[in-house]
Amino acid sequence: VKRFVPSHELLPRAEKGELAAVARLLTRAEAGEPEVRETLSRVYAKAGRAHVIGITGVPGSGKSTMCSVLARKLRASGKKIGIIAIDPSSPYSGGSIMGDRIRMQDLADDEGIYIRSMATRGSTGGMARATLDTADILDVAGYGVVLIETVGVGQDEVEIASASHTTLVVSAPGLGDEIQAIKAGILEIADVHVISKADKPEARSTVTDLKQMLTLGLSLSQEQKWIPPVVATSSLNNTGFDELVTAIEKHKAHLDTGEPGLQRARRIASFRMLKTAEELLRDQFRKGSAERAARIASALAERKVSPYLAGEQLLAGVVKGISQ
Amino acid sequence: VKRFVPSHELLPRAEKGELAAVARLLTRAEAGEPEVRETLSRVYAKAGRAHVIGITGVPGSGKSTMCSVLARKLRASGKKIGIIAIDPSSPYSGGSIMGDRIRMQDLADDEGIYIRSMATRGSTGGMARATLDTADILDVAGYGVVLIETVGVGQDEVEIASASHTTLVVSAPGLGDEIQAIKAGILEIADVHVISKADKPEARSTVTDLKQMLTLGLSLSQEQKWIPPVVATSSLNNTGFDELVTAIEKHKAHLDTGEPGLQRARRIASFRMLKTAEELLRDQFRKGSAERAARIASALAERKVSPYLAGEQLLAGVVKGISQ
Repeated sequence: VKRFVPSHELLPRAEKGELAAVARLLTRAEAGEPEVRETLSRVYAKAGRAHVIGITGVPGSGKSTMCSVLARKLRASGKKIGIIAIDPSSPYSGGSIMGDRIRMQDLADDEGIYIRSMATRGSTGGMARATLDTADILDVAGYGVVLIETVGVGQDEVEIASASHTTLVVSAPGLGDEIQAIKAGILEIADVHVISKADKPEARSTVTDLKQMLTLGLSLSQEQKWIPPVVATSSLNNTGFDELVTAIEKHKAHLDTGEPGLQRARRIASFRMLKTAEELLRDQFRKGSAERAARIASALAERKVSPYLAGEQLLAGVVKGISQ
Repeated sequence: VKRFVPSHELLPRAEKGELAAVARLLTRAEAGEPEVRETLSRVYAKAGRAHVIGITGVPGSGKSTMCSVLARKLRASGKKIGIIAIDPSSPYSGGSIMGDRIRMQDLADDEGIYIRSMATRGSTGGMARATLDTADILDVAGYGVVLIETVGVGQDEVEIASASHTTLVVSAPGLGDEIQAIKAGILEIADVHVISKADKPEARSTVTDLKQMLTLGLSLSQEQKWIPPVVATSSLNNTGFDELVTAIEKHKAHLDTGEPGLQRARRIASFRMLKTAEELLRDQFRKGSAERAARIASALAERKVSPYLAGEQLLAGVVKGISQ
């Protein structure tokens, strides 16, 4: 019988870079059971060395391919690279689909690149909390760069990509109207814009259009010290990636000047605190005060109380549960 | 100078179907200011007559066009139809893009169809709460059917579509790999599957593939009393919509048998209570205890406390704020 190894025993092994220990710790962090929480707090206290890069873009923007070429490029500097891929998942296919993508698998032969695929699984929530804990574990396990890739659709997914030190937003030429609309909605979170598939003939006008859009946006926020550059890459021809790495490094240097980095750290911390509070809320809802929550929900379903009152009652119960 | 009309004075006028009053109430509900909350509680207590239909599907599935044809079809029965379109929005284009779509505008000449476009606006949250309050207002204003259309990507968007009496998931032939993966992830929330663009030659195999996928899923949950039908529609040829309306009516009849409807109502209430609690949490975070929250976030940014501790401290402060 295999002994259950407590999380706090896995941590020093993960810190030495032992892959099996890293993997087990990541699985526990994702589940977020109480047993792992104290260890995650220790991980958090130790983390902070890795440069975390969020990568997001609409479906069809070629961000996964771009991400794997970028990972190889960054790896060439000698740093270990962690990749967290947030995948839409299916209950019918039995799990995460995009994690299986072949383009990622060609990285799997490099021991210095660790790929972790996380399934969103519909409505469980807590994805942001789990993703950021995952990034911290990779950080303390010695991964100098952590890439977080999400499909840039949906508030949660976009927020996760922006809770990083440097956020890349990937666009591509020739996408449909609805996709374009979604794309426009996520431009503002970019520290660096990437136009992938630059080998396509329409790419040039995509770059021009984007730059024009950004100029319009700039007039609204001239105070900004960092003007997000637009970099065109082609994963097919392997071009533009030196420029992309330079842009990322410049942004990192910008953060390291002081105030911008502190501001970013506070923004990420605020987001993280809120997301953790929300997860604690859902936890209590599901477990701690499930019976009580069900009672309030029934009263709400029968329209005896209002949603606001129900929400307040739920919150009040939760904190009682926490402070006990 | 125009007098500020309190929300509670707008309500009786909205209930008589006065469009200007409906519009103003909707705007206030979306903002969610304290002034409107008591009125929203009264709205909630009165609502419950409308049949709420959630419509979701991946980008390119043709759901907006399908939705507008369906709206006309349902309108033919004499009922007033409300449509809530959740749109990804852009800070660069100055608001919601999809709301401008021409396909919706051809409904605008019918006084019995009310279209409300809601922008997701990145990271503000509270979209679920605002959407369901909007549906309630349309309900008490006499709209017998309320359609809620979301782009079926992102947890929040999918959850909103499933917080309805009948949820339609729209697919289409010939979409890319990444889109297919996202699609697979949302199939489970469907009460009725719609294959739009049935005029395309590949549509037949799309229907077959989907039915096969669903059969695989069924073996996992044989207890289910309702087996989601698959309906093929063509907005171009105007075919399949009679079958779709029949499928929706059958599902409504299924809910009306008793237990399934009660279960659904409790599920929606649970979701709504949780989302409202989360919004109250964010509210406190932003306003009520902003200073305190900033202090905790700073400590977190400096890694002096862990995310869990910060989350707990935030929750504790929030409830104190509420009970004061």
